Amino acid sequence: MGKEDFLPSGTERLDQQLLFTAEIDKMTSVLRRTVLLDKSRRENDAEHSWHIAVMAQLFSEYALRPVDIGRVVKMCVVHDLVEIYAGDTFAYDVAGNAGKKEREDRAADRLFAQLPKDQGDNIRALWEEFDAMETDDAKYAACMDRLQPILHNTLTEGHTWVESGSNRAAVEKRMAPVREFMPKVYEWIDANIDHAIAIGWLKED
Amino acid sequence: MGKEDFLPSGTERLDQQLLFTAEIDKMTSVLRRTVLLDKSRRENDAEHSWHIAVMAQLFSEYALRPVDIGRVVKMCVVHDLVEIYAGDTFAYDVAGNAGKKEREDRAADRLFAQLPKDQGDNIRALWEEFDAMETDDAKYAACMDRLQPILHNTLTEGHTWVESGSNRAAVEKRMAPVREFMPKVYEWIDANIDHAIAIGWLKED
Repeated sequence: MGKEDFLPSGTERLDQQLLFTAEIDKMTSVLRRTVLLDKSRRENDAEHSWHIAVMAQLFSEYALRPVDIGRVVKMCVVHDLVEIYAGDTFAYDVAGNAGKKEREDRAADRLFAQLPKDQGDNIRALWEEFDAMETDDAKYAACMDRLQPILHNTLTEGHTWVESGSNRAAVEKRMAPVREFMPKVYEWIDANIDHAIAIGWLKED
Repeated sequence: MGKEDFLPSGTERLDQQLLFTAEIDKMTSVLRRTVLLDKSRRENDAEHSWHIAVMAQLFSEYALRPVDIGRVVKMCVVHDLVEIYAGDTFAYDVAGNAGKKEREDRAADRLFAQLPKDQGDNIRALWEEFDAMETDDAKYAACMDRLQPILHNTLTEGHTWVESGSNRAAVEKRMAPVREFMPKVYEWIDANIDHAIAIGWLKED
């Protein structure tokens, strides 16, 4: 990146905001395991974050309790930012997920320090809220984060399930936030898990 | 895309929402003229929409009047959806912009009809508000839509300016929303225009 070409504005705060904007362009090269629906290549974090932010405007009627969609959309577009330094951890990678929390905390320290403190604190708080999955907004955002890849899997012949040799228990565990907070949507997921097992995309055990 | 593999939920409304979610994955293959900051490839509409949605959480202090950031973020992630069918029209392509409005209206008819009517109407209204640039939320969203590519250009040796042979007047016209609604940020843009001309990335006339 040509940050050496950056022309300072004369105001440190504005420079920090502009340079942070440039830094997060790196989300476009953090690759996920999911493939795009045309199977041309793996999806990246910027695309995934955008996709669930649109979805958040469509599925709130199935949430058990009302959510603040504007807040959720803000959360969706920043929920994976720390992966710029921590990398994407595949949902079904047990070993990778063991060190995930520490790796992401260090990444957050490094990333959010590049913003003016008030803004770094705000965005970090949104990310931490998402990660803790305790508020209804965070639960709903987490549901979008689960629903998008399962939709992709069902439309790409179970791509990541086949590639990783996943089984029913792992997918059901991953989808638990949807079962708990969006039971009507989970019925569709549940039918898809059965179907994926029947068709051989997913293992029963 | 494997939509033929879609397992219906038994509820038409939920099916429409899920299939619309699948359809908009095509945003990842609508390419813009802008290149990513690592210059590896052209940016796509999903990435651009995500990027300005994060930016909307950073720059509101420079807006002349208060904006509703949650609403703006919602607008940012849907503002280019019609390009799935209408294609991206390069900002400095005069001929392409002549037929843009009609092309995008037809695309919107086709795209939003795939959603339940209430949701299609809501998202279309957000897009139309963005496009009309009359409300303060839309003006602010438009500023993000202008600031992101100019930041990219300044950090990629004026990539799209050089490629298209753009001149000062065209860039100043394109940046007018920032000049009017975020004058402090425009000072930085103005200095970059002068710098780009001095260094040969942009033509004076």
